Amino acid sequence: MTYTLVLVRHGESDWNAKNLFTGWVDVDLTDKGRAEGVRAGEQLKEAGILPDIVHTSLLRRAITTANLSLDAADRHWIPVKRDWRLNERHYGALQGKDKKQTLEQFGEEQFMLWRRSYDVPPPPIELDDEFSQHGDPRYAGLGDAMPATECLKDVVTRLMPYWETVIQNDLADGLTVMVAAHGNSLRALVKTLDGISDDDIAGLNIPTGMPLVYELDESFKPVTPGGRYLDPEAARAAAEAVANQGR
Amino acid sequence: MTYTLVLVRHGESDWNAKNLFTGWVDVDLTDKGRAEGVRAGEQLKEAGILPDIVHTSLLRRAITTANLSLDAADRHWIPVKRDWRLNERHYGALQGKDKKQTLEQFGEEQFMLWRRSYDVPPPPIELDDEFSQHGDPRYAGLGDAMPATECLKDVVTRLMPYWETVIQNDLADGLTVMVAAHGNSLRALVKTLDGISDDDIAGLNIPTGMPLVYELDESFKPVTPGGRYLDPEAARAAAEAVANQGR
Repeated sequence: MTYTLVLVRHGESDWNAKNLFTGWVDVDLTDKGRAEGVRAGEQLKEAGILPDIVHTSLLRRAITTANLSLDAADRHWIPVKRDWRLNERHYGALQGKDKKQTLEQFGEEQFMLWRRSYDVPPPPIELDDEFSQHGDPRYAGLGDAMPATECLKDVVTRLMPYWETVIQNDLADGLTVMVAAHGNSLRALVKTLDGISDDDIAGLNIPTGMPLVYELDESFKPVTPGGRYLDPEAARAAAEAVANQGR
Repeated sequence: MTYTLVLVRHGESDWNAKNLFTGWVDVDLTDKGRAEGVRAGEQLKEAGILPDIVHTSLLRRAITTANLSLDAADRHWIPVKRDWRLNERHYGALQGKDKKQTLEQFGEEQFMLWRRSYDVPPPPIELDDEFSQHGDPRYAGLGDAMPATECLKDVVTRLMPYWETVIQNDLADGLTVMVAAHGNSLRALVKTLDGISDDDIAGLNIPTGMPLVYELDESFKPVTPGGRYLDPEAARAAAEAVANQGR
């Protein structure tokens, strides 16, 4: 008896294309990103891996990716759960900033600390910053849990309650679970699944729109570490492109 | 204290455009239907009527209409519930048949009985009919409740448990509830809301992609009978077009 978990990072967004730090800013997919969403669903259908339930963040790029891929897989009708705990890492004061400019302004070391260190968050965003989500009704229930910035460790901390209760419960019910989320919330999940160290997680990049399938044992540990991409060649090329962002 | 309920019939589908009986056949929206979905969301946003939760059928045309309209209203992130009880009326053996041809073959009286009588269902569909949903995984849990044909009365009967428990509970929680569904499941709901007689419901047509807003009192009765369309002129013209289908 194994459980099946499918991770899908949203397709290319407007700000991926513009090379801006996005975080919780609710940007849309590009046409390329929409096509990636559809293609992800076609891959699932071709592989016969059919989600019984989908979990998404509260951000449009993940929600639309889920909608498009499930429609392409003829699984548009499955139950949906959404939670802020699946959101992208909050990028603090960097939200809305150009990645290349930030690299030039702060230097390689600081830039990579913010992007890939496990426990160094960017400076917090101001409440009145144009890219703050302060006052957004979708986060009204968060109270003090509303972040002003996050490092990857913070993402792991806020994601775990959702993984350990809601998602694991669905898996334990025998459902094939799809999670449509973000580069860093999925890195946080994969770190936990595969037991990747705080240092080594820096080197892990998850490509957009490529279903990553984990078979899990009854303790929710991967049968095959790292899972498998349905299209491994394309996934490898795409992950390398992510690693080179900001260059 | 009033509750707010928003009804949206899906935009034009491939088979609306081709003038075929659709029922539970899971056809897609046309480009016009997608534009109607977006426009419905823009109307909601312009009116400041922002759903807190959405209920859909299990059919793609309603789900995609909900997705597109909520995205246009910036409410893509709200919780979603889906249930077969919101599905279109099952059209029995007429599913996949041309409306005009059916009118010619069976005559005006029989045609109108099937389309608009309250309690005369079309002949049941055969299990092996190419337009049967027998064996569709989304209906695996229905067992004996799975219809082979339905009249409007049958739709009222299967819709009521969902309306009286799930939807009313969400309304009672103070949520603005959107229901994205179908011509006949929405007629069944409106019949109940407005206390329309079995005879008079024949004359009620609900246009595609036009948000119909009901303010309800604490007994879930409409404050204004019939509710209100956000764009009444367009809704009237569209409803007349529905009434003339098959001519």
